[in-house]
Parts: sequence; structure tokens; C-alpha cells
Amino acid sequence: MSLPKIAVTMGDPAGVGPEICLDLLADRELAGRCTPIVFGDREVLGRCAEACGKAPPVEVIEPGELAGTTEPGVLDLGPMDPGQFQPGVVNAATGGATYRYITAAVDACLGGDIAAMATAPANKEAMHLAGVKHPGHTEILAERTGARRACMMLTSDVLTCSFVTVHVGLHEVPDLLSVERVLETVELTRAAMRRLRGREPKLVACGLNPHAGEGGMFGRGEEEEIIAPALERARAAGCDIEGPLPPDTAFLDWRREQTDAVVCMYHDQGHIPLKALAFDRAVNTTLGLPIVRTSADHGTALDIAWQGKANSRSLKEAVLLAAKLGG
Amino acid sequence: MSLPKIAVTMGDPAGVGPEICLDLLADRELAGRCTPIVFGDREVLGRCAEACGKAPPVEVIEPGELAGTTEPGVLDLGPMDPGQFQPGVVNAATGGATYRYITAAVDACLGGDIAAMATAPANKEAMHLAGVKHPGHTEILAERTGARRACMMLTSDVLTCSFVTVHVGLHEVPDLLSVERVLETVELTRAAMRRLRGREPKLVACGLNPHAGEGGMFGRGEEEEIIAPALERARAAGCDIEGPLPPDTAFLDWRREQTDAVVCMYHDQGHIPLKALAFDRAVNTTLGLPIVRTSADHGTALDIAWQGKANSRSLKEAVLLAAKLGG
Repeated sequence: MSLPKIAVTMGDPAGVGPEICLDLLADRELAGRCTPIVFGDREVLGRCAEACGKAPPVEVIEPGELAGTTEPGVLDLGPMDPGQFQPGVVNAATGGATYRYITAAVDACLGGDIAAMATAPANKEAMHLAGVKHPGHTEILAERTGARRACMMLTSDVLTCSFVTVHVGLHEVPDLLSVERVLETVELTRAAMRRLRGREPKLVACGLNPHAGEGGMFGRGEEEEIIAPALERARAAGCDIEGPLPPDTAFLDWRREQTDAVVCMYHDQGHIPLKALAFDRAVNTTLGLPIVRTSADHGTALDIAWQGKANSRSLKEAVLLAAKLGG
Repeated sequence: MSLPKIAVTMGDPAGVGPEICLDLLADRELAGRCTPIVFGDREVLGRCAEACGKAPPVEVIEPGELAGTTEPGVLDLGPMDPGQFQPGVVNAATGGATYRYITAAVDACLGGDIAAMATAPANKEAMHLAGVKHPGHTEILAERTGARRACMMLTSDVLTCSFVTVHVGLHEVPDLLSVERVLETVELTRAAMRRLRGREPKLVACGLNPHAGEGGMFGRGEEEEIIAPALERARAAGCDIEGPLPPDTAFLDWRREQTDAVVCMYHDQGHIPLKALAFDRAVNTTLGLPIVRTSADHGTALDIAWQGKANSRSLKEAVLLAAKLGG
């Protein structure tokens, strides 16, 4: 039986993506569980290997050869003009390249040549400079796969969170909440956790405001008018979900032990405890897509890029989860 | 040399305040470090002691005897009508009583009969029902002491956070930020941490938006236009402060080890990691007042009130910190 082939997008060439992809290509444990194919640029990887003192990629796959490939290697989508970028400095060229790796991987998943995809970090500002109109991976994937609905979920050994809103300013969050959107996020979370746990999961949902509004004192009644009704509808459909909880009580250690996933209203509500508790072990999954997509839970880390210091653990966990969900 | 006398407000009579105050009155270790005086109601404490199987209070002090007291005891500000409340159910009467305990303690601190005060949990909804117009302790104390500025700080052995905004709806947060308010919070935090650490502290400040705005992509430029200029002014005055950081990177374990305090923009930005990492060990301090005030870092816990299950650790830590800062 052949191993699942997993597309690993190289991320922004100027960030830590290339070096952590090199680590994965050399990882024998990983090669025993799946076949990682880096969607990126052979020349960038070769230069990065030299800069970091890592092994350069051995297998190079040209577009068109993907279906027949059975070894870990690089699908070469380059080249980048060497004058167009330098390590640690993102620009429109690196943002555009990042976007090309992502769309090629999505298309390979939709076409069936690849079982699932895992993504190395993109730089949102660089993609913005390149004219990409979506703020992040999740939105790019939702559009390209024609997904009607999608949401981000972060999983780790100590905490799993999904998000009703993600990459928006804090001032936009309250108006983006709706009964439908909260319910959709709960349903996607429930389905994903059932697949991962093999049983009905135990979920909790956070409120939006301090103390979950303290009986209507803080906020505009989002807990009573939006979140609680959505949870009622989820419960009526058989979902085991508690809340809306005061956000600062949703992540207590005893509660984490009893909970499979926490539905969060905004980015930092879940990202802050996740990174505080499980910095380099969290894996990002996009729920609701017709394909399986996971990603490393860290940024491009431009300050340490191309120095061989970046830790590839999160990306490796992402590839393993992709293989588990999509294999 | 006499020990510092610390006022301990009993909190909402229907919550866990009475039983944790009983624990403190019986705590011999505490009595060796300070003299706790519970500002509350002897009858409520007596009934609670019976309900929880704890020792009833021995020393009862009438208003007017406070200055001469040298033993741990209860300053009786009662009585509550026994028909006015039942354990676990807050109402206007319990909210009004809570408020009286707080104001009496403030006045005793201002008058010099008491060195500092520590507060058991109030219920904001009950105080609201009683016609108290302030949303929480911090605001009550700021007004009653005539403080020009004040802010909340939470300290624990693993993390200390101070707050630019606290008890407001999430939708109000962005408009409440200003260069002056951020700078004021930084200055109060710096002064408090210098006193606690005995040296210049190392501070960080969070951004407001996901990824600290990601170069202006999320939010309305609060990081560039408000937070960064405030931090520049603080640095010009000699403050060692980094930021604005992406909020989810401010609480990583390696960063916590290098940081004395984190300046947070809103309630849950700091409360979520604090409670996740140090649930019952955090102590609340109000900075900027002419008196020293600390408090337990948990709510009235109505679901377990008067059952003898509540943990008095946080309130004890609060009393010890009050004695340290005010003694």
C-alpha cells in the first residue's frame, strides 16, 4: 500500500519556510508515514540549504510528473529572480511566489494527485503587496475550492480551538458575529472532532465580552442574542456544547481536561492560550473545505530566517495531521 | 513592632466571600504576617460557618474600636435581614452590602486606621441592581479616593498583566485607547513593578489586533497611531518596554521568563493567559490609588457558595501582597 502524498507549500521564500521544508525532506520518520512533496522553488531551497548548513533537496519533480512520484521531493514552481528578494525581507515578489505555491497545491488536491496539503507560513503583508486580495490562507482556500463555508481550527495536545472570526481588526469582530456564523463554526468543529476522536466530542463556546457580558452589563448583548441561541440550535441537533462561558474561564486546566475543543469568537481569544500553553506544537486546520489542509502554527519569523534556527516541529505535526485526515 | 492591619472586605454575602474570609481568620500563618480585619457581617459569617462546618469568628469589632484592635477579627457592618438573601442568589440587598464593605474599608485606609485593603469577590450585577453606578471595584475605588488615574494589575508567580481597559464591552475597546491612557498604564505598571522587584522592570505591551495589525492590514492602525507612540514616550522617560507585540506572542514561555509585566489593551487579553497558567494564584492590585488595594482573582462562584468548597488561596495571596505593599 502506498503512502499518502502530502503537498507541503514552501511559504514565503524570505521567511523560515524553506529551511523547515528542508528538515521535512530529510526526516526519515516522516517518510515512513507519508510522502511529503514541497511545492516551492528548487533554487531557493538549494541556496537556503547552503546558508543553513542543511542537506539540499535530492528529488526534483517537474510539474506533470507529480502523479507518478513516490519519493519525498520538491515540485519546482520557480524560479524566483535572485535579485528579487533577500532572506528576511518580504516584498511583492515573495508574496506572489507564496500565493503560487498555495494555489498549485490546492489544484493538485482537487485534481486527486495529492491526498492533502500542509502549508508553511505565508506573510500576509507580502501577499497584500502582490495584489492578493485575501488576508490569509483560509480565505484563499475557501475561494479556490468554492467552499460555501470554512473556519480555522488549531489543534494541539493540550488545547484545540476553532474560530468564528479570524483575520480582522478587533473593532470588526462584534458586527461579524451572527447566529448562523456561530452555528456553522460549531457544526464544523463538531464534525472535525468526531473524525479525530472517533466519538461525540465535548465542546465549549466562549462569550465575546469580559465575564461573558456579566448578565448584559458589558457589550451589546452578543452572548444572549447571538451566541446562546446558536448553541441552543446546536444542542437541539445533538451537539454536546457548553457556554457561552466567560472567556477567561474557558481555558482553565481542569476544564481543558474535560473539553475536546473550544469555539472562540476572535483570533486572540484562542491564539493567546494556545501559544502560551503549546507554542510550537499547535497545528492549524481549515475546516469546511472539500480538501484537507493543515498548516504550521507560526509566522514567517523573518528575524531568524535562513539562519538554521527555525524549529520544524509544528510543520511536521501539520504534515502528520494532514496524512491522518486525508490519507 | 506591630503587624500591619489589613482590611479584608467580605464580598457579596451570597457568594464564596464569607467562607474564604472565615479561612483567613483561622489562618495562623497569615496571623504571623499581618492582622486581617474582615469588613463584613458577623451574623452572615456565623451562619456561613455553620453551613460549611468551619470555625465561627471569635473577635467581633464594632465601628469605632478599629484603631485599638490588634487581633484578627470581624468589623461588623451588618446586619443583613436574613430574609433578604439566600446563599447562591445575589440581589440588590447583597449588592448594596458588598458596596458598604468596600466604602468602609476605603475610608479606614484613607483615615489611617488600616494599612491596606484586600477585597473578596463582588457581584457586578448585584451592585448594579443596588444602584451602584460603577462596574467594578477599580472604578469605585478610583472615585472614592479621588484618584486621577488608576488601572488594574494582576500578578502571579508566572505572569503579571496590567490593563489599559477593563470592564467594558469588546466593541468599546478600540475607541477607549489613547496615547495618554496607554502611557498612563505603562507608567503605573513600571512604578508598581519597581516597588515589587526593587529594580527597573522589563515590560512588554501587546497590540490590539491579530498579529498587532500585521503592518496595518487588520484594525484601524491602533498599533501605529496609539500604542507605538505611547511606548516611544515611555522609553524616552527611561522605561524598558518592548512592543506593541502580536498579542499571541506576548505570553510564550520563554518571553514570560524574561518579562516582569505585560501591558494589555483589554480584559481578556491578559485574563485568559493568566487564568490558564495560574488559576487560583493570581492577585489583583489597583494601581494609581493613594491607598493599597489588592483582591482575589476570581468571582463570587455562586454555584459552589456556602458549601465549604471554595479555595481561599487567591484571597490569602491578596492579603499577603497588600501587607507587602502597604505595610
